Amino acid sequence: MGGLPVSTFKPLDINALLEEIPVMTAFIADYYKDIETYPVRSQVEPGYLHRLLPDSAPRFPEPLTTILDDVRNDILPGLTHWQSPNFFAYFPGSASNPGILGEMLTAALNVVGFNWISSPAATELEMIVMDWMAKFLRLPREFTFSGGGGGVMLGTTCEAIVGTMAAARDAALARIGFEGITKLVIYASDQTHFAFQKASKLVGIPPANFRVIVTSTASEHALPPESVRAAIDEDLARGLVPLYICATVGTTAVGAVDPLAPLGDLAREYGIWLHVDAAYAGACAACVEYERYFEGLDRADSFSTNCHKWLLSNLDCCCLWVKNPGSLVSSLSTDAEILKNDVSEAKRVVDYKDWQISLSRRFRALKLWLVMRRFGADNLMSHIRSDVEMAEQFERMVEKDERFEVVAPRRFALVCFRLRPKKGGSCEMNRKLLGEVNASGRAFLTHAVVEEKYVLRMVVGATLTEERHVYGTWKVIQDMADGIVSEEYH
Amino acid sequence: MGGLPVSTFKPLDINALLEEIPVMTAFIADYYKDIETYPVRSQVEPGYLHRLLPDSAPRFPEPLTTILDDVRNDILPGLTHWQSPNFFAYFPGSASNPGILGEMLTAALNVVGFNWISSPAATELEMIVMDWMAKFLRLPREFTFSGGGGGVMLGTTCEAIVGTMAAARDAALARIGFEGITKLVIYASDQTHFAFQKASKLVGIPPANFRVIVTSTASEHALPPESVRAAIDEDLARGLVPLYICATVGTTAVGAVDPLAPLGDLAREYGIWLHVDAAYAGACAACVEYERYFEGLDRADSFSTNCHKWLLSNLDCCCLWVKNPGSLVSSLSTDAEILKNDVSEAKRVVDYKDWQISLSRRFRALKLWLVMRRFGADNLMSHIRSDVEMAEQFERMVEKDERFEVVAPRRFALVCFRLRPKKGGSCEMNRKLLGEVNASGRAFLTHAVVEEKYVLRMVVGATLTEERHVYGTWKVIQDMADGIVSEEYH
Repeated sequence: MGGLPVSTFKPLDINALLEEIPVMTAFIADYYKDIETYPVRSQVEPGYLHRLLPDSAPRFPEPLTTILDDVRNDILPGLTHWQSPNFFAYFPGSASNPGILGEMLTAALNVVGFNWISSPAATELEMIVMDWMAKFLRLPREFTFSGGGGGVMLGTTCEAIVGTMAAARDAALARIGFEGITKLVIYASDQTHFAFQKASKLVGIPPANFRVIVTSTASEHALPPESVRAAIDEDLARGLVPLYICATVGTTAVGAVDPLAPLGDLAREYGIWLHVDAAYAGACAACVEYERYFEGLDRADSFSTNCHKWLLSNLDCCCLWVKNPGSLVSSLSTDAEILKNDVSEAKRVVDYKDWQISLSRRFRALKLWLVMRRFGADNLMSHIRSDVEMAEQFERMVEKDERFEVVAPRRFALVCFRLRPKKGGSCEMNRKLLGEVNASGRAFLTHAVVEEKYVLRMVVGATLTEERHVYGTWKVIQDMADGIVSEEYH
Repeated sequence: MGGLPVSTFKPLDINALLEEIPVMTAFIADYYKDIETYPVRSQVEPGYLHRLLPDSAPRFPEPLTTILDDVRNDILPGLTHWQSPNFFAYFPGSASNPGILGEMLTAALNVVGFNWISSPAATELEMIVMDWMAKFLRLPREFTFSGGGGGVMLGTTCEAIVGTMAAARDAALARIGFEGITKLVIYASDQTHFAFQKASKLVGIPPANFRVIVTSTASEHALPPESVRAAIDEDLARGLVPLYICATVGTTAVGAVDPLAPLGDLAREYGIWLHVDAAYAGACAACVEYERYFEGLDRADSFSTNCHKWLLSNLDCCCLWVKNPGSLVSSLSTDAEILKNDVSEAKRVVDYKDWQISLSRRFRALKLWLVMRRFGADNLMSHIRSDVEMAEQFERMVEKDERFEVVAPRRFALVCFRLRPKKGGSCEMNRKLLGEVNASGRAFLTHAVVEEKYVLRMVVGATLTEERHVYGTWKVIQDMADGIVSEEYH
């Protein structure tokens, strides 16, 4: 038969774990010791790993050290190192000590908190931590449990969008009948994250009913309320049903901020659901100097942010708050016999399965609780501010080099910049610049296209980034630019 | 200002982590040392934690040991201990050493593999591991990448269902036009998991178009193909569009198995998507003695199972395979400028963001790779077989006690049983029995209602469960039954 006899196979063996965890810990420590030596963006070719690994699982156990050797030799070269201090791409995915410890504890307890009874502490700690986070972020009281609303921890913002759109949709369909689904309309800007369009299609709203409102440099890429109103009026005149407005604080391409107060007034006037997506910039709500960007949030129906982006909470950790949890629950709840229990029946508890797409859920609240307690509110704010300060320094360096220009106003820790094109508006030299920087392995940045301009995005937010990494990366960019600009003159 | 000065705040500090991990490890070891002493199902009252914790986050950092003391004193009593060897409820959520180590490593590397370039190894290892798992489970070759299909790791089965339903829906709507969404019909049985009904509503299919086909004890609660055919023909006659059949291997209530071969033939005949949900029992596909239950799987369009249930892979770890990845991708893909890169543009790689609801995703493949390599295929099969053996022992004990009856044929490691009602069909005594067993804290079981019979479900699957726990739990049940049966006679 092979393998160990059944009686000696102990898949969960704490004595063995006490020996294995130090081995894994040493591996992790080595990884971080060397992290600056790896190319930030992986330089492997598609299919590289297929050539290195066998094509089926082993029949017999392999030692942990063998596997970790393979991680070192085969996996690490294929990683794009999100924790490298020279990672400035996308938006950050920030790790931290309590983030890692929290995931470890969550995995070790491995409880499934789909309803209250399946692990009461998982639900109750989540409710408490979501109120803590709401207060830390200075959210309107109506979003907290203590203020009549409530929050839920999800994997990603995409789930938050799907859930709130489904809630808005089902409230509308209850009024107009199911046939009306083809009449529902969603409003967003050309800067809104593509996840909204995907979610809208996913919940069955015709792709043709997703309105992409044009923004402009003149209005700093914010969603213009007057254009939204015009679109709504036009849709109403055509017999359509305006359903949901997507507003963003800190858009993906340039970090633009939609005006929440007038959008909120509009949404109320027409009875439309307003969701505010602050996946990246939500963390800034904690700092009073960003208060103006969140003004009017009290008029929104829901708000979400990813603590795994800028709040040191490791993947995955999206926080969604709603003013009216009943709207989520009436769309997403299920009432299966198999899960019936006295406290749920008596409606004495929150059953988070009714707040999300999925039934099963990890105990994510432990991690966020550890992060908030190990760091404290003041340190979390300092962390945001210090990243913003480094981004400001970068912006100043860009402004001082006359070959470059900053392309959109910097609001958070994202700087959009490019080489000024000499003649016409060729994007080629900036595309080339980015390609060379990333191919060097010394830093990783990504791009956006803003009104046909190809721009480089520099986001300061990786946990380990210090001033020297920002300066060093600027030096790499300047060096690469030297070659490109001189070519351009030949 | 309070807090540490910015320059000394190091949220990701490996030297500190080297001190903290041993503290966390010791906490976890203590937890497992004591795990049998805790009531399996938490005995707290709703709102208990709110009374113990402050109502906002601390301003200043707190020591790890203080937080772990609070976990011990405040959180553990509120847990329902899924890792207790006396946990026999729902379906298991099984933890293991490599499951915990895998989560630890995933959290430490903290890469976000939404597309290939964002961390090539995350995508490529997932493709390889999904082919490994497909082979281990003896799935038809067409589900593997090497056979033209492919697999993806998701958080939960719910996500697998939503994704495949959306794919089926969009293929149909491409033919019949978007207005046709109100005509689409889904077929399931009265034993199908409620997640399908929720998913169907979520993707915009009218709740009235979800057909719940009746099953019976006579056909062992399997979905009868002839009833599905009749329902389809009736729907076609009414001008509706049959879309998607949900088949299950190992239903939640009693572990029933739907006949895949005739359902698959039917699905092909009518051009309907067939999804096979083996969330729990999928693990058994690895063992040749269960081959008959998976016969006809080659005729399905998609198959999913949760390795976090019975395959020792900790939350979360759902595996979905599809025969035609293009159908998923054409429904779920996005083409945002911000993520454009050469290899994706050239279609040389898999971008898993196009296979799922969400954009961001954790590097789950590491964990499953660790589980498969650390244990080896033979041990994983032994693990399944040893749980089934314990369930058989339990079943025999139930059968020997004439006060009890086994209510449905046992197929996997789930035994459905009840106290035989003396007069009439009162469910009360079994409800009472279950309540008393769970209130004792000595074991945790859940229930189902099968053709109006209230039955207790005993699922053997927690990683630490040994024969003595199964015997001990049977003894607890018998003792509780003594009191109830004697009352019944008074």
